[in-house]
Formats: sequence, structure tokens, C-alpha cells
Amino acid sequence: MAEASTKHVMDREKIGQQMYEFIRALYPICRSITGAGLRETLKQISEHIPLQISEVATGTEVFDWTVPKEWNIRDAYIKNLAGERVVDFRKSNLHVVSYSVPVRTRLPLSELKTHLFTLLDHPDWIPYRTSYYQETWGFCLRHQDLLRMKDEQYEVCIDSSLDAGHLTYGEYHLPGEEESEVLISCHTCHPSLCNDNLSGIALATFLARHLSTQPRRYSYRFLFIPGTIGSITWLSRNEDKTHRIKHGLVAACVGDPGKSTYKKSRQGDAEIDKAVTHVLKHSGQDYEIMDFSPYGYDERQYNSPGFNLPVGSLMRTPNGRYPEYHTSADNLDFVSAESLKDSYQKYLSVIQVLENNRTYINLNPKCEPQLGKRGLYRLMGGDRDTGFDQMSLLWVLNLSDGRHSLLDIAERSGYEFSVIKNAAHALCEKALLKESSGP
Amino acid sequence: MAEASTKHVMDREKIGQQMYEFIRALYPICRSITGAGLRETLKQISEHIPLQISEVATGTEVFDWTVPKEWNIRDAYIKNLAGERVVDFRKSNLHVVSYSVPVRTRLPLSELKTHLFTLLDHPDWIPYRTSYYQETWGFCLRHQDLLRMKDEQYEVCIDSSLDAGHLTYGEYHLPGEEESEVLISCHTCHPSLCNDNLSGIALATFLARHLSTQPRRYSYRFLFIPGTIGSITWLSRNEDKTHRIKHGLVAACVGDPGKSTYKKSRQGDAEIDKAVTHVLKHSGQDYEIMDFSPYGYDERQYNSPGFNLPVGSLMRTPNGRYPEYHTSADNLDFVSAESLKDSYQKYLSVIQVLENNRTYINLNPKCEPQLGKRGLYRLMGGDRDTGFDQMSLLWVLNLSDGRHSLLDIAERSGYEFSVIKNAAHALCEKALLKESSGP
Amino acid sequence: MAEASTKHVMDREKIGQQMYEFIRALYPICRSITGAGLRETLKQISEHIPLQISEVATGTEVFDWTVPKEWNIRDAYIKNLAGERVVDFRKSNLHVVSYSVPVRTRLPLSELKTHLFTLLDHPDWIPYRTSYYQETWGFCLRHQDLLRMKDEQYEVCIDSSLDAGHLTYGEYHLPGEEESEVLISCHTCHPSLCNDNLSGIALATFLARHLSTQPRRYSYRFLFIPGTIGSITWLSRNEDKTHRIKHGLVAACVGDPGKSTYKKSRQGDAEIDKAVTHVLKHSGQDYEIMDFSPYGYDERQYNSPGFNLPVGSLMRTPNGRYPEYHTSADNLDFVSAESLKDSYQKYLSVIQVLENNRTYINLNPKCEPQLGKRGLYRLMGGDRDTGFDQMSLLWVLNLSDGRHSLLDIAERSGYEFSVIKNAAHALCEKALLKESSGP
Repeated sequence: MAEASTKHVMDREKIGQQMYEFIRALYPICRSITGAGLRETLKQISEHIPLQISEVATGTEVFDWTVPKEWNIRDAYIKNLAGERVVDFRKSNLHVVSYSVPVRTRLPLSELKTHLFTLLDHPDWIPYRTSYYQETWGFCLRHQDLLRMKDEQYEVCIDSSLDAGHLTYGEYHLPGEEESEVLISCHTCHPSLCNDNLSGIALATFLARHLSTQPRRYSYRFLFIPGTIGSITWLSRNEDKTHRIKHGLVAACVGDPGKSTYKKSRQGDAEIDKAVTHVLKHSGQDYEIMDFSPYGYDERQYNSPGFNLPVGSLMRTPNGRYPEYHTSADNLDFVSAESLKDSYQKYLSVIQVLENNRTYINLNPKCEPQLGKRGLYRLMGGDRDTGFDQMSLLWVLNLSDGRHSLLDIAERSGYEFSVIKNAAHALCEKALLKESSGP
Repeated sequence: MAEASTKHVMDREKIGQQMYEFIRALYPICRSITGAGLRETLKQISEHIPLQISEVATGTEVFDWTVPKEWNIRDAYIKNLAGERVVDFRKSNLHVVSYSVPVRTRLPLSELKTHLFTLLDHPDWIPYRTSYYQETWGFCLRHQDLLRMKDEQYEVCIDSSLDAGHLTYGEYHLPGEEESEVLISCHTCHPSLCNDNLSGIALATFLARHLSTQPRRYSYRFLFIPGTIGSITWLSRNEDKTHRIKHGLVAACVGDPGKSTYKKSRQGDAEIDKAVTHVLKHSGQDYEIMDFSPYGYDERQYNSPGFNLPVGSLMRTPNGRYPEYHTSADNLDFVSAESLKDSYQKYLSVIQVLENNRTYINLNPKCEPQLGKRGLYRLMGGDRDTGFDQMSLLWVLNLSDGRHSLLDIAERSGYEFSVIKNAAHALCEKALLKESSGP
Repeated sequence: MAEASTKHVMDREKIGQQMYEFIRALYPICRSITGAGLRETLKQISEHIPLQISEVATGTEVFDWTVPKEWNIRDAYIKNLAGERVVDFRKSNLHVVSYSVPVRTRLPLSELKTHLFTLLDHPDWIPYRTSYYQETWGFCLRHQDLLRMKDEQYEVCIDSSLDAGHLTYGEYHLPGEEESEVLISCHTCHPSLCNDNLSGIALATFLARHLSTQPRRYSYRFLFIPGTIGSITWLSRNEDKTHRIKHGLVAACVGDPGKSTYKKSRQGDAEIDKAVTHVLKHSGQDYEIMDFSPYGYDERQYNSPGFNLPVGSLMRTPNGRYPEYHTSADNLDFVSAESLKDSYQKYLSVIQVLENNRTYINLNPKCEPQLGKRGLYRLMGGDRDTGFDQMSLLWVLNLSDGRHSLLDIAERSGYEFSVIKNAAHALCEKALLKESSGP
């Protein structure tokens, strides 16, 4: 991958702000695992990258699952006797339990309460609830607002529809020199929630846009899909292509102020696991590495034993570990341009490692070559022109026996990957190294 | 193995006391590696379980060893000039060095002393000494009693016999669904010593009695044998059966107040090693895991390189690590019903793991199955009815690829084995899992 | 290897002093990678061991390198206007940059300064500099002397020659029972520097002399070679013999007061790595184990990927880690007879391990043999006559299955190697053990 041009450097400076603005634009839309909100979101992503949209009909069997009915909603409220909307979908789409069936009725508070959900610990936050596979209805509201509701009759309206339709997802494939793919997957089914997962959508969109302008060794596949049912649907329809996925990341929760957290693939020692660990270790920031567990986002499906794809998840604070998770507090204040930019840069760094992680053979394997006669002797570490030093050359020469990738050499020597990569390129130029078929 | 019925639950409550009473009954008997005391002990065990008794003639060659003469003793004493028994076998059978040849003589204290053994550090305890393979005689006594002995002539009598006879051992084989065996071995050669090893005898006896009432996957073989020469004799006579021993434990020192200690098999990572470690880790109590070393009890023979059987030893405080070891202080006060019951329950828990540790195949390996439509969605952890939760289901599904046993899954997920087992059984019922031929 | 006789014990007592005296004799010689000083050094070594001297002509191609011109020097100085030698080669051969071309000129201080090297941090020490592959000249001096030099004209003379000639090295091969070799390599190219590397030269010389008097399982090859170009030259000329090198050590920096430090071979788990680690662990002294890195001394060449020989380096304080390194302070005060003797003894201990590290088969693998009937029962640990105890016998018997070397058994049991070796020899004598073909 070529060095960033001045234009791209400037882009990178602005990238955090651009991602944040995109999140702001998408925030009001009422997304779910199907329906108009999801379509509108994909349309807005398409303004940045040429997304290929798929529509899968309700009732389609996808492995053990069936594509559900399509859900759409226009309005919803609870009115008191005075005719005031005490709960109003127009103020927050979190107020309605996602996939609520249409309802129009009058109920006393006592009966209504069985359909109301609040957070006792955070009485001023609205929880986020769904009921995709059980037909019911409900409202989520601030606990403090529930306490204010009098014991009277209420008018309840959910102007929704749950009918045969389609599940929609977006896909962007960027061909590279190799057919082998890097998969970047994000879920697009959450309504007005910023970190989970407008941050992942924004990161994937801008990363795809950037990579489209770069030379690429790998092909890249970006998936914008509803959680669980979306990845199951995609895997079901693309089973013959999954063998191409050589590395993958699920992008979610990348905009909050927490430290970077990497959840490993089920394999645990896949190249993506090593690459992300390396990048975080050299980031100069605090970070955490978690073992794989069969919970979380769509890595659950990619890592199911029948696929066992090397797909990890690079997040900031993981799902369920921050109090704002799945509440109205996961809003535009909870994510920042700064965190988004930092996450974006770490994704780019990981991709740089993957793109450049090749295995080489030392063409002068018996004793060291004489570096001096090639102008490679006593190069200093801080050398801005070369980006490597003499020790990195010696490490690359010593370990380039066809069994150590550049990432292996970086890990064993303690050098940051790019220094080892630069040293390897310099040695290739001097015909002291050539690419090997791999470790 | 079926769930414990009410009767069995009550049995378990009483089991500690029952074991203690059995120890109390066996305590006075003067056991050695051969002879009447050993036979009487096996007879009493036979009142609980139908023991098969073997008699192996003196002189029989067993690998590098020869079955020794049979030793029996009726009485022994040292009388002072006043005719008083200053050392009296009738008061404690520890007073006579085991396998002492018959003697009837008069000696001054100075000569007698070369045959007397005491403990300087514990002047009120009688040591335990043997001389199986060197014909000699001796007395063990309290050091404080030795100090009281005047410098006079003593009458010495050991009314023993050391003649051609037999080595006796007991064996109880419980057939299971599989020919593969779990071996439980304990030594039965120590005289009035409670922890080492009446506790092991009691535990093995009551464990065998319990297992005889249960459905069994494995066959079980309980050995009640004299230490060293007994296991060598058994192995020599049953060499063709040893390949069936898939797991084994040597039961010794299981009644003292110390924490549980597991000494691994020579293999170090055998299934029995993993199973015991898992049980102790989840016991909620302090415990210790020791690497194998070629000393201790009969695990030395089972783990000799020509057999290398996966036999560990689950004890409380190991041999030699408590001051009461091999002294008269290893008495009825040193062991307790409570400790015996705790050890018994840990043995049972280990057996539960072994019995249920199978390897399964996820029959819906591509993506997660839809648990909701099978009534398995959002089950809570504390659910008394199911004994598993949703995360345990997901772990079993994710790792059931034919290469992970349930114990492997329990270890990787952090769950207690029984939760993983229950989850697996629930998934089998829903036809989402089937047993595999093994990892 | 036989036990040390009384004479050898006495030799060992004196060995530190003898090594120190040898260093004192070699100290004044002006060595470089070629030339008269190197030849004189090899001549003095030859007075202790029958060195085979090789002369390799300038211009000879050795892998990627070319044997350089031969450098010799007779005198060198900087004179001030008063005719005083302000820098005088006759006072220290470090004053001249090694391989300085001949020069005879007059220069003002300002111009002269570009050829002067000092140490700001240690103004009273002379640095050591070389310029083997770039034709230039220079002087090294105390910074305090530079400050005293007036801004005047100086007469500069380096009476050196740089002409076609030879690279000289010495080699001593001691045949053993096996053709497999232990390589001991030291560099001989440094002028008046004691730790780096007269200490290594002295150790290798006296070790070789001692081993020549001993029975040997392995053959031993001692190389006295100029750094880098010397090992490259030797490897280039002896490529067909390198497969014989089964273990190797680079001897350097073995006389300073620091703790012992072992730098592992590139393989990292070679037998030499285990042997040295074992010796240091049981030395009762502080020590450090370093991973291999492709820098340091001639281990760089032996461990290049085309050879990958199991050669580590057993030093005291490694190159570059002590301030006296490559300065006039690495003098006769910096090394001591005591440190030299300690290093020598550790080398000998390592060789004892290598010589005796065989793999055995237990000839009585089924159950323990009866040690008592062979007089091997209850041997005490401190027994001066046997040098082993009963537990060591049991460990050797238990692990002698053809897959554990004696060093493996020592490591697993925690015993010092010699105890395990003695136990194995005792068991061989009793026909309970025989040598195996190896793990």
C-alpha cells in the first residue's frame, strides 16, 4: 500500500470529524433488522461508497433461521386523559420496543404497565428493547416519567406494520491483487444509538472509501447488515465465498472514550489476532485483549464451528460493559470525533500490517552479508529517510528463513512492524531478500 | 449417572459418620503386608462390598520381586526386672517393628537399646517402623517411656511367626457399559494408623458400595492391597488387563483436617489430571496440585515407565507432610467424619466428570441455531429446573466440533462441568448435538 | 570424563591466576583483524596448546566478503610545535584508529580535530575505534588531553602499512570418541583490551589445555579468530565440517566482576541452551539468560540462517553493557583471576553436562526394581561415597523411557545434573539401565 499523499494526510486529520458528522446524520433514523429505516441508512452510506444492496424476501430460509416479516413504523404514543402524549415516538425512536405489533387501545395504568420498560438505576434514560421473534408490543420510557403517570386510562397507539417484505443489507467489495479477502462487518439495525453501532457504520464507510483509493494486495469486503439475522443471511447466501476470507474484523463500539479492546477470533492465534495485538501493543495507549467467547456481535456467526473464520472484533468499550449501552445515553455526547479517529487509525494500522505481512528468504543466508559495501552499515534508528536501522536489518536477515513472517520478526525483535517492513524492503532492493511462498 | 435420589442424599449426609465408624472398627487390627490382620481387614470390607480375595503364595515371583514370607504376631512385650510390661503390644500394635522375627531373650538396657526406636521431637508419640525385607526385630516406644527405663536386665518377647504362607489382597470389579476401567487403589498394610490409610480404605469401600447402585459408563476396579508389594503383585498377575485402565486414583490420607491435594499422574495432562484439577478449582476451597514424583504410594508402580498408567492421587495432606504421619498420633482424633465426607464427595465429583466427559458434534455448525424456537432462549443462570444458562449453551454449540470434550469446554468457558454437561444434554434433546467418537 | 585427580584440583586452584598472567602477557600487543600483533598472539597461545595456524591471502572471497589487506603499524604520534608527543602510540595502542592508513603531515588543530576521537563522559579514558572497510585515519585520546591541546600546528605521523598480505587464525582440534564437535570460539582482534577479549582467549586456551588431558566423548574445536571476518572466513573454508558442530559457545567478556550471562542460540532450546541454563541455575550465584539477538560476537555468523548452529555465548557482563567496554578502562584492573576462574569452572561444568548427557532405558520398566537386594535402598543424599540418593535413583528409573535425557531428568526432578548422572551410572552397574540411542 502506497504512502499517504498530502491530500490523504489532510483527510486523516479531518476523518474523525467527518465520521462524527455522518453519525449525526444517521442518528434520528429509526432502524431495525428490516424496514425503511435500514434502507434509508444504506442509502446514506451509498453516498460515500457504491454499496450493492440486497433484498431478501420474508420467509427465506437461511440455515436454521427464517427471514422475518418486515417491520415499519410511522408513529406511536401513549396519551393521558388530558390528551397529552406522555410517551412520544416522535421524540425518541427508543420509546417503542422494536418489532412491536400495531396496537390502538385504551388501558388503565395497571394493565399498561406490563408493556412498559424503564431503568431503575438510570431513571432519566430510556432503555432500548426489541422483540424480533415474539409478536408483542411495548414502550420504553424514563423511569422518572413512569413515576409521574397517574392511575388513569391511557390511549395507546403504535402505528406500525409487520408484513411480508424484505430484509435489506449492503455490501461493498473492493477487489485486490489477491482473491483472498479481508472482511469488515458492522451491524446496522440499531435505532438512535451512537456507539452501538453508528460508530461502526461510520468507521466501515470511511475506511472503505479510503481503501478504494489505495493499491490493495487483498480484496476487501464490507458488510452493512442487521445483527445476527443479517450475518446468518449473508453467510447462507455466500457459503461458497467464505473460504476467501483470510482475515476479518467486526466493527462495533468504536466511538466511546474507553480504551481499545480486541476480542480474539475463535482460533485465537490467527494472523488477524497477532496483527491487532501488535498494533495495540505499539499504540502507546492502554488496551485490552479478550479471548473469544460466543457472545457479542456477528463474530458469533463468523466463528461458529462450521465456518471458524478468523474474525475478531476491534472495539473500544465492549457491549454491555458501559452503563450507557442500549440506552438513550448512547447518544451524540457519548461518542467523539477524537475516539472515532483513533479507532479508524488503528483499523488502518492493522490493515497496513496485513497488507505487508509477507515472508521472505535471505538470499545470503550463510553468515551476514557485508552491509557496508551496500550503504546499509550503521544506519541510525531515528533516520527519517529510511524508517529502519541496522539492528532491524540484522533481525530480518537472521530470521528470513521462510518460516518467519515479517510480523513474526517484529514480535521476536520487539520492533514495530513498519520498521521491519522498511528494513525488508531495503534488503529486497539490494537483492539480499526475496519473497517466499510463506511460513 | 442418574441424579441422587432422596435416599442417596440422606446416605451422603451420613456417609462421613459411616466412614468414621468403619475406621474405628478397623483401627485396633494389627495389619501388615501379609498375615491375619490384613485378612481380617479384607473380611470386614467384604461386609460392605463383595470383595474377591486373592492369596498369592510366598516365593511367587512378581516382576523383580518375590512374595515374602507371611508374618503373624500374637503378643510382644518388654518386661522389667519387676515383671512389669514396660512396652506392651496389647496396648498398641505400633510397639513392634512390623515383620519382626520371633525373639525371646534377656538383655541389659544397653544392648536392648539398639532395638528400640523413639521420636525425640514427639516424646509422647510412638513411631511406626517396618523391616519387611531385612530379618530383624525391634520395638517402637514413646521417648518419655524410654527415659524412664532403668539400666537393668529386661525380658524381651516377640511372639511372631515368619513362615511360608500367602500375600492377601482384595479386589472388587464393577462392570460398566464400557470395558474401560477407572481404578481406585488403596493400601491396606498399615496397622493402627487412621489417616494413612484406614481413611483410604473407608473411602474406597463406601465409594464402591455407592457406585454399585448406580448406572455406570465405565467399569470400576477397586484394589485393597498391601503397599508396593501388593500393587506389584497385582500388576504382575494382571498385566494383560492394565490397558483397560483409562483413569485411576490412589486413595490415601483422605481424613485429616488439611486441604485437598492432588498429585498428578506421570503423564501430567491425562484426563484424570484435568478432571481432578477442575473439581478442586470449583470446590470453593483451598487446594494444591503437585506434579508427579516417583515416591509416595502405589502410584509409583502404576506410573512406572513400563505401565505409565494415568493414575494420580487425591489426598488431603500428603504422606510425610504432617507430623503425625507414621506415628501413634495418626489416630482416631486425627481424622474426622467431616473431612472424610468432603474427600468422598470430591471423589464422587471427579467420577461424575469422568462419567459424563464425552465429546459432541454440533449438528447445526453453520451459524448459531435459533434457540428461541426451541424454548432455549434467555435462560437464566440460576435456573433450578435446567441447571444451565444461555451462555453455556452457546459455549457448547461453539466448541462442539469433535475436538473439544465437555471438560475442555468447561475449562475454556470457566463454567463448572455440570453446567456444561446439562447444557449439552439439553442440546442433545433438541437434536442440536450428538455424541462424537472423541477428541 | 574422569574425576579430577589431585594434580588437576591443584591446577584448578591456580587456573585463575594462570589465566590472568596470560592476559598480562598479551595485553601490550597491538592486535587487529590481520597483521603482526595477531600473529604474535597466536604464537603465544601456541606455547600452551599446539595451534594450527592458517594464513588466508588478501583478496580471498569468503561468502559475501573479501579478506582485506593486512595492516601493520610500527609507530604513531601527534607532536606539538614544541616537538612533544601529545598523543603517543607507544604509550597505548588504542591511540590509533585500527586500520588507519599511513599518514605524515602537518595540520592545524581545527583540521586535525576531524580525525580525533574522545569520550566526553569519561574524559580520562581513551576510546577504541576501528575503520576496517573504509580507508581513513584517526587518533583516539583522552578528552582531558584534547582540551589541553593549543590551537597550533601539529605534526601527525602514522607509520602503518596496509598491503596485500594475509588474515591469520588459529585452530585446535581435539578428537574425541565421537566425530560430533563442541565448538569454542573466541575473537583475537582487539588490541589492549582485557575483558574484550583477552579474557576469552585465556579461557579458551586453558580450557583446551585441560581437555587435551581428559578422555573425551565429543571432539572439541577451538577457534582463535579475528571477529566477524575471521568466523566468516573459517565457515567459508570449512562449510563441509559445520554439520559436526553439535554444541558451541562463543567465549568473550569472561573476566569482569559482573554476574554470568548466557545468550542463547538462535534455536533457543538447543541442548547447549539447556545445559548452560542448568549450570547457571545450580551455580548458587546470580545470573541472567538472554534470548538470541543477531548482534554481539561471532555467534552472529554461526547462527546465521544458512548455518543455524546451536552456538550460544557464555559471558559475564555482555558487550556494550559496561562503561569500560571498548575503552582504555577495559584494562588489567578490570579483570580478575577470581572472575576468570569462576568463568572457567562454569565452562567446565557445562562441558561435564554435555559429555555425560545421554539417554537411558530402564531395563526393569514394569514397577520399581527392588533396590534393597542390590544395596541401593535408603541411600542418603549427603552420601559422599555415592554422590546420589534414593530419590535420584527413582527419578532416573521412572523417566528412563528413551525419551528423557539425563539433563531432562535433572530439570524435571530439580536435582543437579551430576547427582542424576551418578545415579544413572550406579543403575547401569546394577544392570537396571542401559544407554539408549537418544531421545
